[in-house]
Amino acid sequence: MSTRVAIGVDLGGTNLKMALVSENGDILFEIRKDTHPERGPDFILTEIEKGVATLLQKNGASSVLGIGIGVPGTVFFEKGIVSYPPNLPGWKEEPVRDRFQGKFEIPVIVENDANVAALAEKAHGAGKGFNHFLCITLGTGVGGGLILNGKLYHGAVGAAGEFGHTTINFQGPQCNCGNYGCIERYVGAQYIVERALQKLGRYPDSLLKDYTGDPDSISPKLISEFAQKEDPLSQETLRETGELLGIALTSVVNLLNLELIVIAGGISNAGEILFEPIRQKIKALALPLPGSLVRVAKAKMGDRSGVIGAAQLAFEKN
Amino acid sequence: MSTRVAIGVDLGGTNLKMALVSENGDILFEIRKDTHPERGPDFILTEIEKGVATLLQKNGASSVLGIGIGVPGTVFFEKGIVSYPPNLPGWKEEPVRDRFQGKFEIPVIVENDANVAALAEKAHGAGKGFNHFLCITLGTGVGGGLILNGKLYHGAVGAAGEFGHTTINFQGPQCNCGNYGCIERYVGAQYIVERALQKLGRYPDSLLKDYTGDPDSISPKLISEFAQKEDPLSQETLRETGELLGIALTSVVNLLNLELIVIAGGISNAGEILFEPIRQKIKALALPLPGSLVRVAKAKMGDRSGVIGAAQLAFEKN
Repeated sequence: MSTRVAIGVDLGGTNLKMALVSENGDILFEIRKDTHPERGPDFILTEIEKGVATLLQKNGASSVLGIGIGVPGTVFFEKGIVSYPPNLPGWKEEPVRDRFQGKFEIPVIVENDANVAALAEKAHGAGKGFNHFLCITLGTGVGGGLILNGKLYHGAVGAAGEFGHTTINFQGPQCNCGNYGCIERYVGAQYIVERALQKLGRYPDSLLKDYTGDPDSISPKLISEFAQKEDPLSQETLRETGELLGIALTSVVNLLNLELIVIAGGISNAGEILFEPIRQKIKALALPLPGSLVRVAKAKMGDRSGVIGAAQLAFEKN
Repeated sequence: MSTRVAIGVDLGGTNLKMALVSENGDILFEIRKDTHPERGPDFILTEIEKGVATLLQKNGASSVLGIGIGVPGTVFFEKGIVSYPPNLPGWKEEPVRDRFQGKFEIPVIVENDANVAALAEKAHGAGKGFNHFLCITLGTGVGGGLILNGKLYHGAVGAAGEFGHTTINFQGPQCNCGNYGCIERYVGAQYIVERALQKLGRYPDSLLKDYTGDPDSISPKLISEFAQKEDPLSQETLRETGELLGIALTSVVNLLNLELIVIAGGISNAGEILFEPIRQKIKALALPLPGSLVRVAKAKMGDRSGVIGAAQLAFEKN
């Protein structure tokens, strides 16, 4: 029996990745391009069409099960319409599914990228064997995808999973979304940097001191590297980041009685200095039963998550 | 074709209600007793057995579909084990389902009371026709039950729905649960009273002033009554209660993309002075798409919610 194969498309604000993926999660053939977001939706969608056509040729069209497409924004799930993705200028409500369905005669499923990441972890990563978990992606923003009762949870129209806009302090600083004290306002990339810089007064000898002339050169990645080198300011910043995440996750663990939290995104590479405070806070603050059950794990799929999770959409559909 | 019938048991810390319920939500016969929580689990469970036996006799045992039992605590749902209900002293882990299943040869389903309330609203109340909603019950504590994808959501072991322990301010006052700034710590009955009393300095002529000699006589119900009489202190207290609830609900609406929030419990009778600030806060603070979709409605089932929702457990099982 031949392996089942699907196409996964990972449309990001910077990179566009498309791959032929086998059901066991192997990437058989991959195409990578720059997204060129400034060229607008028609250019980008045509690029994807070309890529999909190439991948179908590589495989022989008849045996590809379907096409899954992950996009950086809200997707009206039942209709496959992408709605105003914030990092893709010029996009309004784009009927992505119908456009592709008209060109290629195989099922097309369009999904939010954070949901795709959760599905990738469920199928082949840290979420394998778990039926109730949240996968959060730490980056510029804080994304989230929920697996409940073993399946992606979409909510009423497909907007579920927005963990980044969980309030931890309604009297806190205002978030980009307009709300106050969202967890993203504390642990989004620029706010991790902001909290690090605020500590320079107490740690004047920190390794970060040489970078203050050009604050844009400071990133969570740099802070993670300095934490590995035992820089106290950087270590404290990451510990605090973990504690803040633990506070926000406690509300979710109490509400949803999850088995697992999966943490993805660049800063998840910081390791135990980030993870241990998350676990400690949840253990200290969550209700005893859900708090004692839930695990916290690093995502395993890394860079491949987008295309493999997108292909998984097609496997689950068929 | 005869109507399907089930037995619903509503075990509360004060009252024990048992009823024969038809599938369309009519109570055909009801038994009400005091719970006598101080007499411990065996006494109470024997009382329920006697009540169920009476109800089966009333109907003729062969045609009762099953027995649903709502209890004020966590239920390990798959096993029907009640775990340390806080208002029932002497209860440990009680295998309630197996005890009843051994005595009566029809299906027995045991469920947390806040989940039962959500199910009652879904079947016959404010949640009819909605597939994604949270039903919260405002009382001494703040309970919650989730309907997701049209069904009660249990989480990993049955502990899901604890909306009351959603943090709104991690630097806020400590909650009974040990966490800080939970919504229950602001809108649980005693804290509504506490917030009202704190306003007496600004409103020395409030109708509440005659009750300060006996603060225990002040309840959310009294504050609601005074708000109806246009007492400014009481009105402000309820508005603030609605705003705080709106803040906590915003996190849930963002995370779960719900269609509806149902509000139950005595203080929900306060009406628009409570509901309007909830709606305003969600509209102002939630992400645009989920925030614009979600409705906020008063629960419809009232006092009957417990027995009707419990009976519904049996209808859904069969």
